Amino acid sequence: MSTFRHFEDFTVGQRFDLGEKHVTAEEIIAFAREFDPQPFHLSEEAGKQSMLGGLAASGWHTIAMLMRQLCDGLLLASSCVGSPGVDKVRWISPVRPGDRLKMSAEVIDTRILKSRPGLGIVRFVFTIARADDTQVMTQENAIMFGCRETAA
Amino acid sequence: MSTFRHFEDFTVGQRFDLGEKHVTAEEIIAFAREFDPQPFHLSEEAGKQSMLGGLAASGWHTIAMLMRQLCDGLLLASSCVGSPGVDKVRWISPVRPGDRLKMSAEVIDTRILKSRPGLGIVRFVFTIARADDTQVMTQENAIMFGCRETAA
Repeated sequence: MSTFRHFEDFTVGQRFDLGEKHVTAEEIIAFAREFDPQPFHLSEEAGKQSMLGGLAASGWHTIAMLMRQLCDGLLLASSCVGSPGVDKVRWISPVRPGDRLKMSAEVIDTRILKSRPGLGIVRFVFTIARADDTQVMTQENAIMFGCRETAA
Repeated sequence: MSTFRHFEDFTVGQRFDLGEKHVTAEEIIAFAREFDPQPFHLSEEAGKQSMLGGLAASGWHTIAMLMRQLCDGLLLASSCVGSPGVDKVRWISPVRPGDRLKMSAEVIDTRILKSRPGLGIVRFVFTIARADDTQVMTQENAIMFGCRETAA
């Protein structure tokens, strides 16, 4: 049975396994065609001629894949009401077709929002790594959750 | 005729108009289904019951729309080789179906990369605003460009 989480259920140091995402060339190219049509995101050939050394996912696609894992693994069973923004995204190494990306979240801060009664902000650091544990991306992101008392 | 830009063509204070993006409900829902399936990004009804007050685009979708305008308006005619990361994304107000988003970029820093000869980093602040000039999103993002001498 999955747990429905409110603001009070998050504590500093808590970690969440957000599962694994298998990346395909088709997905990389489809995202790039719509949102980031730079040559190294569209073909292996152009990727080889670039600093990336081969076809690589748009960094924004990598973030979008993380968001999907975060929804499925945590947010959809929570009182999440949105996010004010993002800090410190670091694209560390290219995402390739065939990569299996392991995603995880760690809580680094929690605080009640004085300006909006009944809401709290949880700050996360997200990490994406390959099967061999090489880091692919890190991201800091504050997410707002309803408190238990008012969200029932 | 469009201009092909290298690192040397960017100067602090320079501004780029990245054009306008018309947002539709279909696009909002299609992006959310794939990458951010929280209820308030999937239907007007669920949006009305949320803090967002109606159907609103995923913040990641808004960023992806900006990236597309940035590619078409600047990066595809440049020596861009990628980006190390992002700082300070602020989602200021919800993006709705029917919005016409005006996008722009301002250069806030430029520096040669000592660790990678022939490359420089340009730091931008991007702004998204509605037709009535209300701000929707701001974002800081460093982008790497080849220098003119080596990129020819």
